Order: sequence, then structure tokens, then C-alpha cells
Amino acid sequence: MTHRTLHDHPCHHGWDRDLPPALEVAPGTTVSFSVADASGGQLGANATLADLRALDFGRVNPLSGPVYVHGAEPGDALVVELLEFIPSGSGWTVNIPGFGLLADEFPEPYLKVWTYDRNVAEFAPGIRVPVQPFPGTLGNAPAEPGPPSVVPPRRVGGNMDIRDLRAGTRLYLPVEVPGALFSIGDTHAAQGDGEVCGTAIESAMQVTLHLSLVKQANFAFPRFRTPGPVTRHIDQQGYDVTTGVASDLLSASRDAVREMIDHLGREYGLAPDDAYLLCSVCADLRISEVVDLPNYLVSLYLPRAVFA
Amino acid sequence: MTHRTLHDHPCHHGWDRDLPPALEVAPGTTVSFSVADASGGQLGANATLADLRALDFGRVNPLSGPVYVHGAEPGDALVVELLEFIPSGSGWTVNIPGFGLLADEFPEPYLKVWTYDRNVAEFAPGIRVPVQPFPGTLGNAPAEPGPPSVVPPRRVGGNMDIRDLRAGTRLYLPVEVPGALFSIGDTHAAQGDGEVCGTAIESAMQVTLHLSLVKQANFAFPRFRTPGPVTRHIDQQGYDVTTGVASDLLSASRDAVREMIDHLGREYGLAPDDAYLLCSVCADLRISEVVDLPNYLVSLYLPRAVFA
Repeated sequence: MTHRTLHDHPCHHGWDRDLPPALEVAPGTTVSFSVADASGGQLGANATLADLRALDFGRVNPLSGPVYVHGAEPGDALVVELLEFIPSGSGWTVNIPGFGLLADEFPEPYLKVWTYDRNVAEFAPGIRVPVQPFPGTLGNAPAEPGPPSVVPPRRVGGNMDIRDLRAGTRLYLPVEVPGALFSIGDTHAAQGDGEVCGTAIESAMQVTLHLSLVKQANFAFPRFRTPGPVTRHIDQQGYDVTTGVASDLLSASRDAVREMIDHLGREYGLAPDDAYLLCSVCADLRISEVVDLPNYLVSLYLPRAVFA
Repeated sequence: MTHRTLHDHPCHHGWDRDLPPALEVAPGTTVSFSVADASGGQLGANATLADLRALDFGRVNPLSGPVYVHGAEPGDALVVELLEFIPSGSGWTVNIPGFGLLADEFPEPYLKVWTYDRNVAEFAPGIRVPVQPFPGTLGNAPAEPGPPSVVPPRRVGGNMDIRDLRAGTRLYLPVEVPGALFSIGDTHAAQGDGEVCGTAIESAMQVTLHLSLVKQANFAFPRFRTPGPVTRHIDQQGYDVTTGVASDLLSASRDAVREMIDHLGREYGLAPDDAYLLCSVCADLRISEVVDLPNYLVSLYLPRAVFA
């Protein structure tokens, strides 16, 4: 079995089909990456609010790659089997002004620095978030020329922030350019569905994955298969759930998060900034109903295990 | 412990604060309801497409109630503890033209009639959906006068279609009128998050619940606490997941469902109408990220246990 590493190559910023490959591999190759955190090392284990205020946005969202996969052509799916994550053990979660679901209501920067072990990250005494590492960003270069932003995901993948892309998962990413030009970044030690404040437990880690191809799969968007259950590391105590009801899904999502911040204040004495960050790293946004017009209902599921 | 029943009272249609109560109870009362299916008995165990085409929409969405709760006042929360469901053992799932997330792409009526036991409902040979009963509709009368439609949920509850309101769950519903005027209907034997085709396994059942009050809770929307995990009846084989990426959550949801219909056709040979209904009764719509603007990512989780 072929195993390649991409540890010392400089990161790139922005998706760009014209970037020279950092690595060329045949389908069937296992590749190990050394993935930087989403700040590109600017927010370390001793980061302060001053570091957050001084963040150089030109250096955020670094990607490792691109990897050119021989034989990959537009219409194919790149199969990414996620094999192993070795997290660094430290990370950060922040509210960045202007970014996040409730950006208008949380205008001040806020920072939480974490250390964590294999299993758990302590948010505060008595509040422990199960660790579940995955890459926030992985994708192929889009056909669109030039360097598009790394922030939004696209049909070729990218910054998908899908919490369940854990080890053992098989992901299918549409290919739009010859060689696929796969890159990875933005590794997370834990996140809830939605990533509501805009950041997870952002953390550098070593990632090992296997690349192969499905010829002419012609998938419109990414698909994946999980190897088993996805919430059993965190569901054993059940959930406290808030809802939002509105004539659009975004407003309903905002309402549900606002209600959970209220709930966490009432029940656990959490300050709003802390509650917002805690939701982002462990609570799940689900669409309970998308058909009872003119109102949609979105629910936010907070796993009570974090307080156990 | 006080236990009352509401079995033989006629149903009502539409939410209306001026309806006379069918029952008056003190907080702390357990009430058993005989809940009709959402068609009001028009679609029985032998229903055909002709019955669906002849559906009298004036008789759909019947509600049992209203129950006047002594001492309930605007600003309070009615606490509904869901104690027991005794499902009828038969039900139906339909695509109604003009209703559902992909209404424009599925213009023809379609019907599936089910029989089921305590644990499982067989969709087709080799496709078995775990049974998980809950009420699609339960809520208090809104303050707004007149009989508003039962279709949309509101901040007082109603047609919330929250899949996880299973037995043991404690639900808090905002009160807007004196006495709360609680009603229930639209019981489901199983449903996925989203209820994407617009119907679940629609099924009459006996429901027993306990009513109490939290004075001046001042919740903006319904909240609930689950007694334990919510997906372990269905997650043991993992999930096949499709995604949608778009600049609004509704389009992303539609994309994810369309992709799953494609997947179920490729992998399991399901016809599009069947795939659409199967998604509605067991697949879960989740918001993977709601912050990576300008694109949102919604995922549809199909539990592989239904094919095991």
C-alpha cells in the first residue's frame, strides 16, 4: 500500500485550479497531512484577546495541498476515506465580530483557549465537551478560475464543517478539474451541527486519509457514509432542546440559538458569550419540519452529557 | 393522581381561543386522548389513490381538545410530559400535490399504506422503518382571534412535527390565553427530521400525558428535554448522507433531498416517489454549517438500519 506524507510543504490560501500540485499520487494512495489550525498558527495555546484583535486575516484558512490524483477527471468523484486524526491537544474557539449566526447580537470579540485529551475538552469546571476530531475543510479545486475564498463550501466540498466526518467515514467529492487538486485544512477537535458562532475547537492535527476514484459518478454535491452511529459519544444523557418557528429557516435557526443562550443562562448561569461558544462546539441544529408552510421549525439540541 | 380521559368528544378544526373547552383540569392532571389520524379517518388501512384524490380537506388535521388548565395565564409555560402512546398499528404516508419540500418536482399524488407492530413498519421487502410514535401537533391556542390554520406551527406550538417528542419527553409550551387551551392531533408512528414529503407514518393512537404549569416562564418558543438518547433505535448501522450547498437553507435542503432520492435509486433501485416518502419517514435534515457565507450546507441522514 502506497503511503505518502505532506508535512513540510507550505500551505496555500484560496482555491486555485492553477496552483502547482504539492504532491502527485495514484488512486489507492494513503496520504498523511500535517494540518495547521484555521488561524495559521496565530492563535496558540497562550492566545489572548489581544492576539484575536490583531489577527491577520491574510493568513487564516491555510490549506495543505493540492494533491493531484492521476486519472481524476471532471465528473468523477474523489473518494476520501478518513483514517486517522492525531490532534495537537490544544485549540481555540472565538467569536469574530461580523462572523457567526448571531453576529449582530454579539459584536465584541471573545476567545476561549482549550487544552484537551483523547476524550474530552474542559470548557469550564463541570462542563466537558467530548472530543470528536474531523476536518472542517476538505475539497477539490473548483473549475472556476482564480483563487476563490476558502470560507464558503461549494459542490466540490471545501469548508463544509460537517461534524460527522470522523475517522472511518468515506466521503465522495465531485471533481471539476483534471487531477481533482484535493486540499485539506481547518481541523476541529469538536463541533456541533451548524457551528453557530462560526468557530469550533480549532486545532492543528495530523490527518491520514486514503484517496481513490469513482469514475463518472456525476454527483451534484458531496456525499458520505458513516461507519456507524454518529452521536453516541455525546447523547447518553439526552438533550435540552430549544426551538425557533419562523417563515424562513435562517430566522428559525437564529431564534433557536437565542433561546438556548437564554436556557443556558437560566439553568447553568452561563454568560451569553460563553453560551454562544458552547453551542457552537457541541449543540446540533436540526430542521424538525420544512413543510408546514408558512412556518418552518428548527431545533437546537444541547447534549446534557456536557454537564454530567 | 388525577386522571381524565377525552375519548368521545368531537374533534375541532382550526386553532380558536373562543372554542368552549372540551375538558377543564387542574395543573397536575394526567389526561388520555383518543387521537384521530391527520385525515380524520378518511385514509384507512385499505385506502387507495382514489381515496387520496377524493380527500376532503375540510376534514383534515382534526384536533382533540381544547383542554382548559386552571390557573394558566399568558406568559406561563404549559408543561406537557408525554407518558404513553398506543398506536393503532396501521397508517399511511402520502405525497399531496402542492405540499412538501419538492412539491414542484413531485406533482402527482402518491400513497403508501402501512401496517406495523410495536417495533417496526415494513416499507417494502427488505426495508423496515423503526417505529417511534409521537404527536405531530400539540399546542396551545394562540392569542390571535379566529380559527387560524392548523398547518403551520407557532410559538405556542401546534404542528411542530418534532420527531423526538417521544414518551418520557417533557415539553414546555408558551401560554397566550387564559387556561392555555391545549389540543393535540396528527399522531405519527415514525418520521425523520424535516418530514420532507409533508407526511409521516400518519396513524391514530391513544396518547396519555401529564399537564402542569411553570408560572411566568416567558419562553419565546417551545422547549423540551428528552429523557435520553434520541436516535439509538435507528443509528446502529450508521448513515448514508447527502448534502446540498446553496446561498439559502431552503435550497440547500432541497438539493440534499434530491441527492438522496438519486442515491436511493442508484443503490437500492427505489423509484423516486418511494424514495421521497422513505426520506420523509426516516431520514434527518441537519444544518451542518450556518455560518460559512455566502453558502450554507444542509445534510440529509438516511439511517442504513432500514435496509439491514
